[in-house]
Amino acid sequence: MTTEARRTEEPARTRLRPLGPGQARIVDGFLAERQRVNREATIPHGFEQLGRAGPLDNLRLAAGGDGRYRARADTSGATFPFLDSDVYKWLEAVGWELGRGPDPGLAAAADQAIALVAAAQRPDGYLNSYVQVVGDGVPYRDLAWGHELYCVGHLIQAAVAWQRALGDDRLLAIAVRAADKVERDLGPGGREGVDGHPNVEMALVELTRVTGDRRYLALAARLLDLRGKGLLGEGRFGAAYWQDHLPVREAATVAGHAVRQLYLDCGAVDVAVELGDDALLAAVRGRFEEMVATRTYLTGGLGSRHRDEAFGDPFELPPDRAYAETCAAIASVMLGWRLLLATGEAGYADAVERALYNGVLSGVSLSGTRFLYVNPLQRRTHRAWEPPGHGERAPWYPCACCPPNLMRLLSAWQQYLASSDDDGVQLHQYASADLEADVAGGAVGLAVRTGYPWDGRVTVEVTRTPERPWTLSLRVPGWSRSATLSGPAGAGARSAGPGVADLSRRWAAGDTVTLELDLPVRVTEPDPRVDAVRGCVAIERGPLVYCIEAADRAARTELEEVRVGQPIVEDTRRDDVAPAVIGVRLATSSNDEVDAIPYFAWANRRPGAMRVWIPTGDGEAPA
Amino acid sequence: MTTEARRTEEPARTRLRPLGPGQARIVDGFLAERQRVNREATIPHGFEQLGRAGPLDNLRLAAGGDGRYRARADTSGATFPFLDSDVYKWLEAVGWELGRGPDPGLAAAADQAIALVAAAQRPDGYLNSYVQVVGDGVPYRDLAWGHELYCVGHLIQAAVAWQRALGDDRLLAIAVRAADKVERDLGPGGREGVDGHPNVEMALVELTRVTGDRRYLALAARLLDLRGKGLLGEGRFGAAYWQDHLPVREAATVAGHAVRQLYLDCGAVDVAVELGDDALLAAVRGRFEEMVATRTYLTGGLGSRHRDEAFGDPFELPPDRAYAETCAAIASVMLGWRLLLATGEAGYADAVERALYNGVLSGVSLSGTRFLYVNPLQRRTHRAWEPPGHGERAPWYPCACCPPNLMRLLSAWQQYLASSDDDGVQLHQYASADLEADVAGGAVGLAVRTGYPWDGRVTVEVTRTPERPWTLSLRVPGWSRSATLSGPAGAGARSAGPGVADLSRRWAAGDTVTLELDLPVRVTEPDPRVDAVRGCVAIERGPLVYCIEAADRAARTELEEVRVGQPIVEDTRRDDVAPAVIGVRLATSSNDEVDAIPYFAWANRRPGAMRVWIPTGDGEAPA
Repeated sequence: MTTEARRTEEPARTRLRPLGPGQARIVDGFLAERQRVNREATIPHGFEQLGRAGPLDNLRLAAGGDGRYRARADTSGATFPFLDSDVYKWLEAVGWELGRGPDPGLAAAADQAIALVAAAQRPDGYLNSYVQVVGDGVPYRDLAWGHELYCVGHLIQAAVAWQRALGDDRLLAIAVRAADKVERDLGPGGREGVDGHPNVEMALVELTRVTGDRRYLALAARLLDLRGKGLLGEGRFGAAYWQDHLPVREAATVAGHAVRQLYLDCGAVDVAVELGDDALLAAVRGRFEEMVATRTYLTGGLGSRHRDEAFGDPFELPPDRAYAETCAAIASVMLGWRLLLATGEAGYADAVERALYNGVLSGVSLSGTRFLYVNPLQRRTHRAWEPPGHGERAPWYPCACCPPNLMRLLSAWQQYLASSDDDGVQLHQYASADLEADVAGGAVGLAVRTGYPWDGRVTVEVTRTPERPWTLSLRVPGWSRSATLSGPAGAGARSAGPGVADLSRRWAAGDTVTLELDLPVRVTEPDPRVDAVRGCVAIERGPLVYCIEAADRAARTELEEVRVGQPIVEDTRRDDVAPAVIGVRLATSSNDEVDAIPYFAWANRRPGAMRVWIPTGDGEAPA
Repeated sequence: MTTEARRTEEPARTRLRPLGPGQARIVDGFLAERQRVNREATIPHGFEQLGRAGPLDNLRLAAGGDGRYRARADTSGATFPFLDSDVYKWLEAVGWELGRGPDPGLAAAADQAIALVAAAQRPDGYLNSYVQVVGDGVPYRDLAWGHELYCVGHLIQAAVAWQRALGDDRLLAIAVRAADKVERDLGPGGREGVDGHPNVEMALVELTRVTGDRRYLALAARLLDLRGKGLLGEGRFGAAYWQDHLPVREAATVAGHAVRQLYLDCGAVDVAVELGDDALLAAVRGRFEEMVATRTYLTGGLGSRHRDEAFGDPFELPPDRAYAETCAAIASVMLGWRLLLATGEAGYADAVERALYNGVLSGVSLSGTRFLYVNPLQRRTHRAWEPPGHGERAPWYPCACCPPNLMRLLSAWQQYLASSDDDGVQLHQYASADLEADVAGGAVGLAVRTGYPWDGRVTVEVTRTPERPWTLSLRVPGWSRSATLSGPAGAGARSAGPGVADLSRRWAAGDTVTLELDLPVRVTEPDPRVDAVRGCVAIERGPLVYCIEAADRAARTELEEVRVGQPIVEDTRRDDVAPAVIGVRLATSSNDEVDAIPYFAWANRRPGAMRVWIPTGDGEAPA
C-alpha cells in the first residue's frame, strides 16, 4: 500500500453492525438457487460479454494496446465514457464469490481483468480508459458527464470486496493510488468539483474503513458539501437530475435521476455514521420516507420517467412506462440496508425485502443470462420490431450498468440477512442460512431453515452461544397480519405484530425458535392519488408481488379483457415457470379464471402482455 | 429560376381543392384574435429569438462571417444540426402574413433573413450551415441524424409560401438550387438514402406544383420507396423511431417519433394524390384511423413518450406524461387536411378541429410570446427547480421547432376553413371569414359570421354566385347531437347529424344559410382500455376540451382532492383568463364547486396543477 495508513479510531455510529463476509452463508432454498445461477451462469456470461462489448479491450488500449475504443452505443452520438465501471462491478462480484468458495475458472478470469486494470493505471494513479484513450488525458475535465469519479468509486468497491472477502490487496493498491490522485486534485486545497454521477462518496468511506486513512472520508464529506452549489450546471435535464439543485442536507425529497439520488444518499449515510452527523442522516431518512410513501412502485421499483431515468412527481407511478431501472432497485437495497444499520428500524428491512424479491430479481432471467434494464409493472403488447429493453430481455446492453450490478448484489446477498450488536443478533431477511455473529458475551452461531418465500415457517437453531444472555430479534414484515413466535421448549407461542419480535434469554446450543409468518394471498388497493392504477388491484403473497402474463392466456398476446373479481381461488404449483414456484389463481368478473405468477418470474416465457395492477369491476371491459 | 420548368399536366387527384391563399380571410372572432396575436406578437418575438439563439448568425457564418457556431443546447453533447429550419419556418410564416396584408417591419426583417439564406448557399446549391461551418462540408454524410433534407424541406415550404402568397420568387430560386443538388446526389441514378427526419417529401411535391418540374415529385416518391429498407439503421431508439422498420406502404400502424411519422405521411398523401397511387393513400388512411382510435389524446395530442418523442402502444395515453408535442398536433392538422382534400370525408376535419382548438393552441400563451413544447393533460404539482417545458412556458427552446411551426400554421389558418370542387363549396372549420371559391359555374363569394367556438350559430351569406346551381356543404362536427340547418327564406330548418349537411340550389346574392350547432357541456368517459384515466371523466364543450387548474383553487397548488360529481352547474364568463372565454363550473362530490377553463388557455396564470381527466366518485379522495 502506497498510502500512509491512519487507522480510524472509533467505529461508525450505527445502531447495528453488519456481519463479516465469512459470517453468513445461504445454504438452501430460493435465494441459494438464485445465488447458484448467479455464480454458475450470470458471472461467467458477464466475463464473456465484457470481452465482446469492449470494456476489457478499452482497458487494454489504455495500457498501450492497439485497436478501436468502444464507447458509442450507436450512431446517435451517445457516448458511454463509463464502461470501465462494468469491469469493476464484475470484479466486485467475483471477489464476493471467491470468498464464498473457490472457483479456478472465475479466479483466472478475474486475474486477467485485474492485470488489465493494473496495466491501464497511469504512474500518477489516474485511471480512466476513456479519458486516456479517447480524451486528451487531462483528468476531471468533464465532471458533469465524464463519470471519472463514478468509475473510481466502483474500482474502490471491487477492491474492498477483494480485501474483505479474500484478503487480496491487488485491487486495493490500484484503488488507493486512484483515490489518492482524486484526493490530490479535488480534495481540500484542490479544485472544487463533484461528479455528475454520485457513487465515489460511499466508496471513499469504505476505503477509509478498510485502510484506516481518514483522508478518503474527508474527501467524501467534502464532495457531499460541495453538492447543491451549482458546480454541475443545469445540463440537459436540469440541476436536479444530478442532485445539484439543493444542498444534500436541505433537499426534502428525492429528485432527478433515481440511481444518482440513491447512490448519493448511500454515501451521505456512510459519511453521517462515520462523523456522527445526525442532521445529514436525518435528511436522508426524510427523503427515503417520502420516497417510499409517494414515489415507490409496489415492486420496490424506483423512477417513473424514461427520458431522464428520474423520479417523477409524487404519485406519478405509471405501470406501463415505469422506468424502475434494475440499478435503482439495487441502489435502494444498498440504501435501505445502510439506514437499517444506522437506525435499527425494521421498516428499512421491509423496503429491502420488497425491492429484492420483486424489482431486483425481475432484472435477471431465471436462466441468469438475460436481463431487464427497465422493469415495468405493465406490458401492453408485443411488437416484433420494437428494440429490446421494455419487456424483452437482452443478453447485454450498450449501457450495461445493470447486469454486473445484479451480479455483485447477489454475490453479497448473505451479508444482508442479519446483523448484530452488543445485545444480540437481528435477523432481517429469511433464507436457509448458517450465521455467525459476535455479541458482548462472545460468539453466536445460528442455523436458519425455511422454505421462504413460498412457506412462512422459519426455524432458528442456536448452534453456538456464549454463557451470558443475549437477544435474538426477528423481523416481522410489515405485510404480516398474524405471525407467531415460539421460543425453545417451555416458551409458549405468542403472536408477533409487524416490526421486531425478540427473545432475550440465556441460550443453549440446540435451542430452537420458530417464527410462523402468515402468507395469505393479499388483494392490494392502490393509493387513490396514484392516477395511473385507479380502479385496479394487485395481488401479493408474502414478500412477492404477482402479475398476470399473456403466456398464461392461450393464444392471446394482450390482456385488455381481464377484469379481476373476488375471490382468489387457490394457490397453484407453477413448476412450468420455474421449480417450486407457487402461483395464484384468480377469478375474473366474467366467470373466467386467470393465473398469476410472481412478478420476478415474468418475461421468461413467450413475449406478450403483463399486468401487476389488474382492473376490477365488470361490464366495462371492452368486447 | 435555374431549373427547366416542365409543367405538371394534370391536377392532383384529390376529391376537394384547396382555396388559394388570397381566397380566404378571417375577419373577426376567436381565430382572428389568435391570428392578430400571432402577427403582432409571436412573429416579431420569433425574429428576435432567432437573432439571440443563433440560427441567423449560423447562416451568417456559412456565408463566410466570423463567430462561433451555435448548435449545442447544453454540455451533455446533444447537438442540434437543424437550426436553419427555424429560420425557414419563420420565413414561411412571414410569407403568409405579408400575403394577408403589408407590414414594413416584418418585410424588412424577412429581407434580412432571405439575404442571409441566399449568401449562405454554396455555388453547387448545397445549403446547410451546420455541415458547412461545423462539419466537413461533404453533403448527406449523416442522413440519419443530420436533418439536411429536413432543412431543405422547410426551405422549400418557405419558398412556396412566398411564391403563392406574394409572387416573390427570391426564396424559390434558392430552394430550387438546393433541391436540384439533392436530386443530383440522391435522385434516380444517385445514391440511395433517406433522411432520418421526413419532411422534404411533402415539400418536394409542393415544389413540383409550384414549378411544374416533376423531377421533384419523382424524388419524393423515390424517398418514400426507399424507406423501410433499413438504410437508416437502428439508431438509438430502433428503426421504427424514423419509420424505417417497415415500408411506407406496409406499416399498418403509426410508430416511433410522432412528428416524423406524421410528416412522412403528409408526403405520402401528397405523392399518392399526384400519382394516383391509391394503395399508398390507403396505407396512410389506415394508419390515421388506427391512430385516432387508439393513440390520440382527447386534446388531439400525439406522442405518449418523452424518451423518444414517440407514439406509445395502443391505449398508452398517460395524461401526466403525455408528450403531445406541439409540432405533432400541428403535423396532424397538416395530415388531416391532406386526407380531407383527398377523400372529402368530414371525419378528417373533425380531427383537424380537435387538434387545433386544443393541442395546437395550448402550445402558445395567450400573450403569444411563451410556448409549450410538451402539452400534458395533467400537471401534478409545481416545483420551482424543475426545468421549463413541462407545464412552464418558455420564451424559446434550444430545440425550437415548435414556436415557428405555430407561427406558420396560424398565419395560414384561413386556408384550412373551406374547399371547393366543381359542384360547390365545402365549409370545414367555422370562423367569421370572407371566402371566395371557384365552382364549375363560376366564382362564389361567401361571408361567414359566427361567435364560434363560444357560440354555435354560424350564418353564411352568399355574396357572389354564378347562375348555375351549386352545393353549399357544411360540416356538422362529430360531437354534435342536435344541430339544425336553415336555408334561405322559404327553406325550413332541418336537423343535421354529424357529417356533412348540404344545400343544393340556384343561389342568389344575399341568400343566407344558418347552421345552429348545439354546444352543451359534455361529460366524456374514456375508453376503458386507457388505463391511465380509468375512473375519470373529462369536460368538453363544442370543439373545446376543458381542464381544471390550481390557479382556480385558492391557495392550492395541487388538485389531489378534487372528485367531480354530477351535475354541471353552469357556464361562466371567464374574462379573468382571456376576453370572451366561457368557463364551466362543476360540482364536486364533496359539495364543493370547481371551475374549469378551456385547455388551450391553461398555464397562463400562476404555476400549479392542472387536470383534463378528473376522478369521479366519492369517499376515496385522500384527506
